[in-house]
Amino acid sequence: MKSNPLITHNSDRLVLGIDPGLASTGWGLVYCRGNRLVYHSHGTITTKSDMAHQERLLLIYNGIMGILEDHPIVQAGMETLYFAKNVTSAMAVAEARGVITLALAQKGIPLGEYTPHGIKQAVVGIARADKKQVQESVRLLLGLAEIPKPDHAADALAAAITRIHTADLCGSISCQLPQKKR
Amino acid sequence: MKSNPLITHNSDRLVLGIDPGLASTGWGLVYCRGNRLVYHSHGTITTKSDMAHQERLLLIYNGIMGILEDHPIVQAGMETLYFAKNVTSAMAVAEARGVITLALAQKGIPLGEYTPHGIKQAVVGIARADKKQVQESVRLLLGLAEIPKPDHAADALAAAITRIHTADLCGSISCQLPQKKR
Repeated sequence: MKSNPLITHNSDRLVLGIDPGLASTGWGLVYCRGNRLVYHSHGTITTKSDMAHQERLLLIYNGIMGILEDHPIVQAGMETLYFAKNVTSAMAVAEARGVITLALAQKGIPLGEYTPHGIKQAVVGIARADKKQVQESVRLLLGLAEIPKPDHAADALAAAITRIHTADLCGSISCQLPQKKR
Repeated sequence: MKSNPLITHNSDRLVLGIDPGLASTGWGLVYCRGNRLVYHSHGTITTKSDMAHQERLLLIYNGIMGILEDHPIVQAGMETLYFAKNVTSAMAVAEARGVITLALAQKGIPLGEYTPHGIKQAVVGIARADKKQVQESVRLLLGLAEIPKPDHAADALAAAITRIHTADLCGSISCQLPQKKR
């Protein structure tokens, strides 16, 4: 986890992005400051495959709850799959998504769910952008020197940016985002 | 919800069965008393489709938590899908399963997950038994005058019986169960 040294402003609204997974759930925090996006922090919640399934879901839930309790988060965005080639692994991700959605509901934090295409469209401006383009757009939009690592955390930051953009949380931030089709 | 008037014995072990769903989650409670199965109660947790998705998962979680807090449950069994024709609806069920699994983990209650075929095999003795056969077996095994309603609750009782049987919680109860292939 990296933290941005920028001082918090009164008008800042903190948005959580999540890329859910049973083995690794990425998370990222982005501020809206006026009509600007400001990076806060990112990280992952990891669980090992030799742990009991119940224990893994509990760890993910506790990890998300810890982030919600430590930060004044006002909104959240999460990557969601509606279709999948590998149904078994998609179901495990859906179970993780369930406990994350529950944690947000218990804290009364509104959640937007976005398909991978929706996130690419919002962040890059191209629904079929590749992974590298998304990561580079996240880096540029948040003014970071390097692409956030690991991939799950970069995807989580992309989900946060998508939430901010689609819910118009920063007012008009179109000047900061690449051109995109609506 | 119906309750059995039988008095609780010290040796009773109460097992929760769950048939998860976003719109309707069935639940059923069955005692192991010595080597006998004794019906306790059953019911459903329902959520309406016009509710926010977050709210529906919260209701399911709170409903299961309420059952866990009101009863000395020692084990649980749940119906699980690993394959699905309709992936979108299967994912919604998986999210519900996630919050139910979490509630059980928070209460430290061991959970067994069973496929529909596994439940049919354990309850009827035939992996490809039809719905009616499962319901009739549940009625017979629990000594009920009528098939429990609605279907989700009957399926939940079947999951409880499967848990009891596969985890050998009642000792040898083979004399009570129909012949089955192992």
